[in-house]
Amino acid sequence: ADAAAGKAKAAVCAACHGMDGKATAPIYPNLAGQNAAYLESALKAYKAGQRKGGQSAIMTGMAAPLNDTDIANLAAYYSSLK
Amino acid sequence: ADAAAGKAKAAVCAACHGMDGKATAPIYPNLAGQNAAYLESALKAYKAGQRKGGQSAIMTGMAAPLNDTDIANLAAYYSSLK
Repeated sequence: ADAAAGKAKAAVCAACHGMDGKATAPIYPNLAGQNAAYLESALKAYKAGQRKGGQSAIMTGMAAPLNDTDIANLAAYYSSLK
Repeated sequence: ADAAAGKAKAAVCAACHGMDGKATAPIYPNLAGQNAAYLESALKAYKAGQRKGGQSAIMTGMAAPLNDTDIANLAAYYSSLK
C-alpha cells in the first residue's frame, strides 16, 4: 500500500480524524497507529453498509467512493502515524 | 466511570485486545488511548447489533451481557492506557 497516496486521500478525513490521526472530538476514534488490517476491515464494513448507529451515517458516505486501493492506502497512512 | 472496575471487566477482552490495549492480531483494533466516548459508542453499536461484517459476530457476543456502567468502565480503562 502507498501511505503517501493515503495521506493525499486523507484530506477529507482530517476534519474528524485529524491529519495526525488524533480525533478532533472524543466521539470520533483516533486512527494514529491503529492496525492497518483493522482499518481496512472497518472501512470495508462502512462501505458495505454493515455498520449502523453512532457516526456510521457519516462514515458510510465517506467510504462509499473509496476503492480497495484507496482503502489500503488510507489504512497504511493512518497506521504509520505515531 | 471506574477504570479499575473496567480493568477487572476487561479480562476477557484481553484475548484479542491485550491487557495493555495493544491488539494480539492486526485484524483487531488497538484500544489503548482510544477516545472513551468513541469506545462507548462502538460497544453500544455492537450490543445493539448495529455492526455486521469483520469480527462483529465476536464483538456482538462480547457486548451483549454488558450494561451501560460496564461499558463506561471498560471505555475509561482502555482510554486510560498509553
